[in-house]
Amino acid sequence: MDPISTLFLDTDQPASRIVRAMAAIGSATASQLVQATGLARSTVSTLLTELRETGVVIELDSRSTGFGRPSQLLSLNPARGRCAGVLLGLGEIRISVCDLTHSVLSDVWLPINLDYSPEEAARAVRKSLEQQCDTLGIRISDLLGVGLAISAPLSFEGKVLNGDVLPTWNGVDIASVFAAELDCPIHAENESHCGALAEMTWGAAMGEKNFILFKFDLGVGGAIVLDGAVHRGTFGNAAEFGHLVLDPRGELCRCGSRGCLTLSVGAFHLLRKAEEFTGHPVSIDEFIEHARAGHIGYRRLVEDAADIAGWGMGLTATILNPPLFVIAGKLAMVGDFFVERLQKSFERHTLPQMEVQGKGRPRFVVGKFLGNDDTVMGAVALVLHQHGKVTASHEGG
Amino acid sequence: MDPISTLFLDTDQPASRIVRAMAAIGSATASQLVQATGLARSTVSTLLTELRETGVVIELDSRSTGFGRPSQLLSLNPARGRCAGVLLGLGEIRISVCDLTHSVLSDVWLPINLDYSPEEAARAVRKSLEQQCDTLGIRISDLLGVGLAISAPLSFEGKVLNGDVLPTWNGVDIASVFAAELDCPIHAENESHCGALAEMTWGAAMGEKNFILFKFDLGVGGAIVLDGAVHRGTFGNAAEFGHLVLDPRGELCRCGSRGCLTLSVGAFHLLRKAEEFTGHPVSIDEFIEHARAGHIGYRRLVEDAADIAGWGMGLTATILNPPLFVIAGKLAMVGDFFVERLQKSFERHTLPQMEVQGKGRPRFVVGKFLGNDDTVMGAVALVLHQHGKVTASHEGG
Repeated sequence: MDPISTLFLDTDQPASRIVRAMAAIGSATASQLVQATGLARSTVSTLLTELRETGVVIELDSRSTGFGRPSQLLSLNPARGRCAGVLLGLGEIRISVCDLTHSVLSDVWLPINLDYSPEEAARAVRKSLEQQCDTLGIRISDLLGVGLAISAPLSFEGKVLNGDVLPTWNGVDIASVFAAELDCPIHAENESHCGALAEMTWGAAMGEKNFILFKFDLGVGGAIVLDGAVHRGTFGNAAEFGHLVLDPRGELCRCGSRGCLTLSVGAFHLLRKAEEFTGHPVSIDEFIEHARAGHIGYRRLVEDAADIAGWGMGLTATILNPPLFVIAGKLAMVGDFFVERLQKSFERHTLPQMEVQGKGRPRFVVGKFLGNDDTVMGAVALVLHQHGKVTASHEGG
Repeated sequence: MDPISTLFLDTDQPASRIVRAMAAIGSATASQLVQATGLARSTVSTLLTELRETGVVIELDSRSTGFGRPSQLLSLNPARGRCAGVLLGLGEIRISVCDLTHSVLSDVWLPINLDYSPEEAARAVRKSLEQQCDTLGIRISDLLGVGLAISAPLSFEGKVLNGDVLPTWNGVDIASVFAAELDCPIHAENESHCGALAEMTWGAAMGEKNFILFKFDLGVGGAIVLDGAVHRGTFGNAAEFGHLVLDPRGELCRCGSRGCLTLSVGAFHLLRKAEEFTGHPVSIDEFIEHARAGHIGYRRLVEDAADIAGWGMGLTATILNPPLFVIAGKLAMVGDFFVERLQKSFERHTLPQMEVQGKGRPRFVVGKFLGNDDTVMGAVALVLHQHGKVTASHEGG
């Protein structure tokens, strides 16, 4: 194995801590690495010299801090160490190969039939990855790992739990299925959890140790980040915000409960309503375009959805009292009025008492990755952080 | 200061770690102390010899493990080091003095007018504590600390946030008010958080690192314990389960929101309903007696409350996916049918998908401390764990 990969995957060595910190930050000065790793300045300095000599670390241009001599910006050698992020979506699979500086080297979208099996998905991903790796002059086994973003919760054992989008994958050990096809480490995680990883690594939540991400897309999902780690819950399905039961006598949801939040807020529901009033099917991108343009029916649907979603966020804040909400998913593209409306509804549905300190309200920010970038970049971040609790080594030969 | 107090309060020394571990566990073998402190076996052994010689630690009877020679059970010397727990309740204040083995040495209930000020409370507590300490032959300044359990959320800065029971205390820095009267360290915490500390130290959640406590009493409160620590949230008011907004068009709550859970589940509400159908006022103890005896109207009120409470617990589980719920508060004394009904409603209001793994449901257990013992013992645990983020040293002279 490539030395950089070896270093990256061995978590105990001080040099690995530097490599992993650089992978997460992108580019960094020696001082930043001291801070990020908690290692002594002298240790970092010695190791950086070694890492430069072996070609693992390269020097970028210098950064002036305004005081003294400029700090040397360092980066991992992009020629060394690659990883892939895979989004297993609804009727499509997206596969991105990135280097350790998180530059996207290749990016492929595969259409696939709606009710594809995990095995079909694994074969399709292998085929595409082989082609992509060929073009890049590497093999799949050279990859640091493949991160899988799944549109369903995963148990700690890596089994897919019943989700909206992939109900037939129920109970499947997804990393094992892919490990039979791909000769490199596999990390799997729920797509919203991947989204939170992307936002905290490169997006709107950089440097934030505590936040809650609400993702408003075809369905509604999310993630809870506490002290820098995604809170998965005991059985791996925390933060299922789409299935907050808001009306116990309401419409039956696919999950088996009644009156789930997603039934009023998920774009699946909004598109159906749009079709009712326009008389023809509307895609999510068309829907967002109309709502952005201020077309009154679409806008009203978004506002009504925001009113309900703000209630769910209020419940979440009454329970967790977070400092920050990150609003992600395609619905966040409709414009500022969505977040404003969310925030207004939130205020009516959570404890007014937080105001005692004057500063007691959580901030609302729109995510950086609003399309499907969040998930695929999150899957890459998953490999970089080795965050996934769900890892299978290659067993298929 | 007494050597044991000095050791107890100095958190950096290895000996302090042993003393604090023993304070939390009660009595322990050397092996248990190795496990609890993470110190080397030889270090623990050497320190225990020193602590025995100075009289800080005493030997209890031996415990046979069935293999080899019996392990010596050790305990802190109960004659050394005392602390007090204070519950600032509705119309009454309870003050308990305990030793480090958490035996209650004295326990006093003070009636006080309903809208007492923090200063009045501090004076009343000082007067009673002086008498109690006199009887025990010590002074207030000999106490390791006083834990205050408050019926309202507290900010990290120690300011009382707007609560149900003590609205006039809003914004008061409660530890400072008491520090002006009491010549020892003061730790303050929300009463439900104290309850969780009591349950995890000596009660139904001993050894549990993750659980959610719902307290059903005159109001509804609770605590979230993640990885062994109470999750306070950013501004100190997480786990305000009583103020989950279940009906945005419902009755106005004292907190300023509408349709809060406590309006259907809090015993305040249940007692009002009981008065409506009986035609005369009913105390909470009478209410519980009637419901326990199976009197149909009371029982029906409890069942209706459990149906709503189970919904709130379902929302909490959809967000946090906990392994364990601890049911506390006086309402849990009405009998098994309350918890059964809670659990049944819970099942209807959270994700059915958890069943995928067969074991995917959180356990429900009834707390050990159902009266006010939870809070006052929690306040003691607060001092023992030095858990309170809110500490004021004596400033009043």
